Amino acid sequence: MAIATTDQAFREVMTVDPPEPTTPFDLARRDFVYGHVWRRPGLERRERRLVTLACVAAADSPHPIEEHAYAALNSGDLTLAEMLELVLHFAVYCGWPKASHLEGVIRAQWTRIRQERGEEIAPWPVLDNGTLGLADWDARLARGAQEFAEVNLIGAPAADTPYSHAGIINYVFGHVWQRPGLSRRDRRFITVACVGVSDAPMPIMAHVGSALHSGDISKAEMDELILHFSAYSGFAKGDALRRTADEAWNRSES
Amino acid sequence: MAIATTDQAFREVMTVDPPEPTTPFDLARRDFVYGHVWRRPGLERRERRLVTLACVAAADSPHPIEEHAYAALNSGDLTLAEMLELVLHFAVYCGWPKASHLEGVIRAQWTRIRQERGEEIAPWPVLDNGTLGLADWDARLARGAQEFAEVNLIGAPAADTPYSHAGIINYVFGHVWQRPGLSRRDRRFITVACVGVSDAPMPIMAHVGSALHSGDISKAEMDELILHFSAYSGFAKGDALRRTADEAWNRSES
Amino acid sequence: MAIATTDQAFREVMTVDPPEPTTPFDLARRDFVYGHVWRRPGLERRERRLVTLACVAAADSPHPIEEHAYAALNSGDLTLAEMLELVLHFAVYCGWPKASHLEGVIRAQWTRIRQERGEEIAPWPVLDNGTLGLADWDARLARGAQEFAEVNLIGAPAADTPYSHAGIINYVFGHVWQRPGLSRRDRRFITVACVGVSDAPMPIMAHVGSALHSGDISKAEMDELILHFSAYSGFAKGDALRRTADEAWNRSES
Repeated sequence: MAIATTDQAFREVMTVDPPEPTTPFDLARRDFVYGHVWRRPGLERRERRLVTLACVAAADSPHPIEEHAYAALNSGDLTLAEMLELVLHFAVYCGWPKASHLEGVIRAQWTRIRQERGEEIAPWPVLDNGTLGLADWDARLARGAQEFAEVNLIGAPAADTPYSHAGIINYVFGHVWQRPGLSRRDRRFITVACVGVSDAPMPIMAHVGSALHSGDISKAEMDELILHFSAYSGFAKGDALRRTADEAWNRSES
Repeated sequence: MAIATTDQAFREVMTVDPPEPTTPFDLARRDFVYGHVWRRPGLERRERRLVTLACVAAADSPHPIEEHAYAALNSGDLTLAEMLELVLHFAVYCGWPKASHLEGVIRAQWTRIRQERGEEIAPWPVLDNGTLGLADWDARLARGAQEFAEVNLIGAPAADTPYSHAGIINYVFGHVWQRPGLSRRDRRFITVACVGVSDAPMPIMAHVGSALHSGDISKAEMDELILHFSAYSGFAKGDALRRTADEAWNRSES
Repeated sequence: MAIATTDQAFREVMTVDPPEPTTPFDLARRDFVYGHVWRRPGLERRERRLVTLACVAAADSPHPIEEHAYAALNSGDLTLAEMLELVLHFAVYCGWPKASHLEGVIRAQWTRIRQERGEEIAPWPVLDNGTLGLADWDARLARGAQEFAEVNLIGAPAADTPYSHAGIINYVFGHVWQRPGLSRRDRRFITVACVGVSDAPMPIMAHVGSALHSGDISKAEMDELILHFSAYSGFAKGDALRRTADEAWNRSES
């Protein structure tokens, strides 16, 4: 591809001019990551951003987190409220500490954009405790078990440990997955990237499989997701997603 | 739970006033992580700190490492000497680079607290070479094999590779696990959190299983540990611990 | 590049026939990872293997660990003794749990190759306790401080914590870096990949900087290492290595 075109690809994604490449890493990022991966059809750029933000936040790399938080907001592909909702979903799957850092960066980049433009880019979302979901524990657990089944396509596990009772049924599915602000399909993109980074085999199988079998993400879209994920989290971790996706797909076909 | 109460929960754990929540993440952290997880019975707060410090150090997130190192020292739940001993144990299981960062933060937070209080909070521990353990290689390897068996409840592996010979038998069990300053139960809390973050399935099975089968950590305590771990390292990695704990427990029951 | 050529590139590295690509991930791995990255001049294939093994072991992905352990042994690029020495060095930087898994895989792949060939591919290395280094603690600490200075190009830190005393000076530099079996240059390749995966900023600066300033790895070689690392551990983590390498290099030039 002509250099002019790969530069344009970078500019569209990152919303700033590309740096002058001076190393093999720079050239490969320009030509492979921006010139090839981001330009592929099959996923919307907004969806690629959900995956990218999860991957760079999980990798803890300071500059990519800043650049991609800026670009996601500055492009208008994701609203501030969606970005903040992504942080909470990410916290559940990759842990609160990394999410805390991501949220601090989003806040700083939002301020930066507002200063660059001399305007409010978005009002800070107003939250009230009514968004925290059902406060009747029995009702919340029942609704959490139902949400678990809808997302995972299997019945909820027995709520017989603190992890499954207070964690999975009462909180993760009893609240987080039900929140407005991101669609279930959006949450699947974030979740698949998070479990891919986390390596744990059973969650990979569960979330890649249910994303496909629910029809929320097609096999072709999942394959694009996996390539995109591999660019940011590496082909080593990408390999596990890729094998799992094929296995889950072949199982459903047979 | 009333806001006053969740704020109080934050204050007890972090030893500072809670920030004003302005995002879904903030609200969820206030209500779920501090208002719920930390307040649960079943583990002492000191034990939750051992797990938390391992999780945030493994996650590399700068602010949580600072906040929790400060809070652990400032609360008096862990002494400086215990914190520094935790760093070495953590280094073995999550690698020296992350441990180096954690130790630098502990040093800085110790100075900060001393300055805030205008007093020594604890004298810097004095170390001498006598604490380095047996200096006769044959004796050290024999003692390391014995310690391995006591901790893992299986015989030590053949010392036929650099990893097992110079590493596991001579150093990890020949020295680190035998050091005073943290009890074996303390070291199990740190180790389970570290292997949970590291994802390698066999070490998870080995350390979760031996913690339970030794009686050092009860099943109910392990279940609390896993929920606490999930809040800090994510429910994706938490899932592997949870499955392993149940599997190990059911095997021992049968 | 012609498909025949990229297939040949795969075959040379992996020592087996390439799979039929059926997804975007497969195509990108064939064309970018094998067809481009591995074929680049500037690093020997043996050196690329040191980086690759560290990256895939750190990523916990079962299949890439198996495939690359097999390929490294089967190609003859690394001897069994070198592979086992790599495991110990890797354990120090990425933690014992992941190293334990890697060593188990190496053992299994060595058996597999022996069975495929109907011969011993290499005798299992014999270890004796004389390889464990100095057993006089004062002498060992003095020698460890010297090794620290030679590797890091700065004086050793005060041995005033368990981490620095029993860990860094007595063990990591008092023993591991001094072991025969891998050269210091080899250990730098493994270490840079490990600290890159671990994200901790100071260890990245320390090891990338000292690898360059010692002259053990040239700037051009480091740039190749970083691209290779990015393919396996992702461009997000690669970005931190790339920035650090340029910063360290520019500082030394000025």
